[in-house]
This record gives sequence, C-alpha cells and structure tokens, in this order.
Amino acid sequence: MERTLYTYFRSSAAWRTRIALLLKGLPHQLAPIHLLRNGGEQHSPEYKAINPQEVVPTLQEGDIAITQSLAIIEYLDEVHPSPPLLPADPLARARVRELALTIACDIHPVNNLKILQYLKGPLGRSQQEADDWYRHWIRQGFDAFEKKLAALGSGDFCVGDHPTIADLCLVPQVFNARRFNVDLTPYPRIVRIDAHCMTLPAFIESQPSRQPDAE
Amino acid sequence: MERTLYTYFRSSAAWRTRIALLLKGLPHQLAPIHLLRNGGEQHSPEYKAINPQEVVPTLQEGDIAITQSLAIIEYLDEVHPSPPLLPADPLARARVRELALTIACDIHPVNNLKILQYLKGPLGRSQQEADDWYRHWIRQGFDAFEKKLAALGSGDFCVGDHPTIADLCLVPQVFNARRFNVDLTPYPRIVRIDAHCMTLPAFIESQPSRQPDAE
Repeated sequence: MERTLYTYFRSSAAWRTRIALLLKGLPHQLAPIHLLRNGGEQHSPEYKAINPQEVVPTLQEGDIAITQSLAIIEYLDEVHPSPPLLPADPLARARVRELALTIACDIHPVNNLKILQYLKGPLGRSQQEADDWYRHWIRQGFDAFEKKLAALGSGDFCVGDHPTIADLCLVPQVFNARRFNVDLTPYPRIVRIDAHCMTLPAFIESQPSRQPDAE
Repeated sequence: MERTLYTYFRSSAAWRTRIALLLKGLPHQLAPIHLLRNGGEQHSPEYKAINPQEVVPTLQEGDIAITQSLAIIEYLDEVHPSPPLLPADPLARARVRELALTIACDIHPVNNLKILQYLKGPLGRSQQEADDWYRHWIRQGFDAFEKKLAALGSGDFCVGDHPTIADLCLVPQVFNARRFNVDLTPYPRIVRIDAHCMTLPAFIESQPSRQPDAE
C-alpha cells in the first residue's frame, strides 16, 4: 500500500505529521502542495477532492485520505502503536492532549495563512497589524503552556520521558514564534523541550529547511 | 470524589462537555463562570489557578483539573467507556476526529470571545465586520464539513448510528450559526444531524437555555 503525505515545508500542521511518520519509521512519500504559488495549489480541483478544507496536511494510504493533523497522528498511533505518541495512563493522556490542543486549537488556527490573508484583504489591516496579531496569540498561548509545563514538572519532553503529540505540536509552533521574532525568554521550559527535541533525528529531518520543497 | 464542570451557558466548547457527561450519566455539578461580567470571571485568580488559559470549560475531579474540551471528552471516554463516544475501528475513529477538529480547530477558536474582542478592540473593527468574520469562518468550515458527511454517507449522526465526539462538536456550532443568522440551506446533512441529536435528552438538557446561568 502506497502512503503519501501532502505537505508544505513551512506548514506547522504538516510538520507535526512528518515527525510522527519518522518517529514510527513508516515508509512514505512527500507530495508538496505549494500554499502560495498559482493562488495556492491547495485550491486545485484534484487536491480539494481529497481535502475539502483545502489545507495541508492530508495523509493518503491507498484510496483512503485522512485530514486534520491530530486525527492523522492519533490514527497512526492506533494502527502503529510503537513507539507510542501517547502515554498509557488516562490522566497522562489527557495532559498530552490538553497541551497539544492548546496549540492546535488556540494558537495555530488563529494565525494560519487564510486568517492572515483575511486580515490583510477584507479587513484591510497592515502587515504590522497582522504581525502583532500573530505574536499576540503565540504569547497568550505560550503563557498558559509554560504554566502547564511548570505544574507538570516537565523535563526534556512535555509529558514523561518520550516524545508525545504535545511535543509534535510544540516544536513547529516554536519555529513559527522565532520566525516572527517572539521573545522566548519568558518560556524557559518551552525553549528547553524544543532544544532537546531538536537533537532527535525525526525532528531534525522533518524541519522546514530539510524538505524537498524548501525555499 | 466530587466532579465539577466549570461552564458558561453560551460557550459551545463547554456545551460539548456537558453533553458527554449527560450521555455517560456521570454525576456532576455545574459551576458557572460568567465570561463577560466583572471583566470576565474566567480571569479571576481562583479560576486562573485551575485554567491558565482563562477559558471554559474545565473539568475538576477531586484535586485534578483538566482543560480543553476535546481532552476532557477523550479522558471521560477512556475512563468511562460506556456508551462510547468514538467507534472501535481506527479509520472510523479518524473520521470522527477529523470532523470534530474541523470545528474545534478551524471554526470555533477563530470565532471565540477573545478573538472578537481583539477585532473590535485593538483592530478597531465594527460590529458588522466582526459579524461578517464570524459567518465567513462558519460557512467555510461547514462547506467542508457537509462534503465530508456526503462522502461518509452520514445518516442521523455524523459517523455510524450513535452520537460521537463529532456530533458533540457539531450541535453547539449549529446553535452558534443560527444565533448569527447563517443561512443553513446549503447544509442539509448538518441540519438533519442537528435535528436528530436535539431529540436526545443529553443534547436537550445541556443546551444553553436549560443552564442554571442562562440569561
């Protein structure tokens, strides 16, 4: 069965799924979808047929297409449980999911390409206002994330001693924060976890600069 | 062990968790947090201590507090598996999660109170522009959601013959769409599922107008 991940080098949602595939050692090919070129390749009829939301990523396995990065990762984790991306204990699983969702619901969607395009298009906001918007939601989300990590007593990873879905969400979000010059000094636990994850091959190989469509 | 759900009658994220508790028949008390009164009770020191994101819902069980509605629901489903809110098959579970996340990531967070307050405050947008923004993201999300339902051949529920996390996300979002006068004519499957769910006691009793803090 052929496994294809539709991806864009700079998409943080796609990056999460690239890490999952590499951590689990699952053979796959990458199909780049350029989100800006030609008005956005995600809007092509071919791509819309497999992802009606017209966003990346999409995982295709044979004739099955799965969308939404966290749905893809939980699916991969259930079908290919080793190494696990969630702990075994229900409360620890809840901790992982609440951290992951803090980023995947409350930071990333508010800052993604289509939102910034709406702010600068229909709402006529400046690049400066769009950048301030972007940084505002990262700071608000990271303030809460750092407090949650402190309450958990996190070390090298968000929860426990192995990468979980929370780390898969955090590392791409930290990359975006740096790209938009967010001061990370108030977030020592976030910075430490990001630095540790970025020593692992699955995180290194999946980063934007290592992608076939990197610019 | 005492179980308390911190909730606000009109919060759609809180409504999802109210449905889950009722479907599973789990004894609990509701602790209303008024999101507007006194500058927002979610910003009080007492509440911030259990939810550093300063949003509802939060589930408290004894001295454990869990945030993020989908993390709460998956936790309840793992600890109290009957009736299940996810199917058994991994692909069907992925279908439920991708539908749920289409709402929980790509519609709801973009439209929640703090975003609308930022649009009207720092960005100086009018009530009309904020309302247009709200309707735009519901329409874009529902367009994709309806196509996904069609591809699944959905009937009375989003996936299969029982309520799942996808339905728990959909019904509160439909309520919001109606509140903002979104034309639902293009979404017959969404309307049908919403109507069917709203015949079930857990959905009826958890709706905003039935809450102790309803206005």
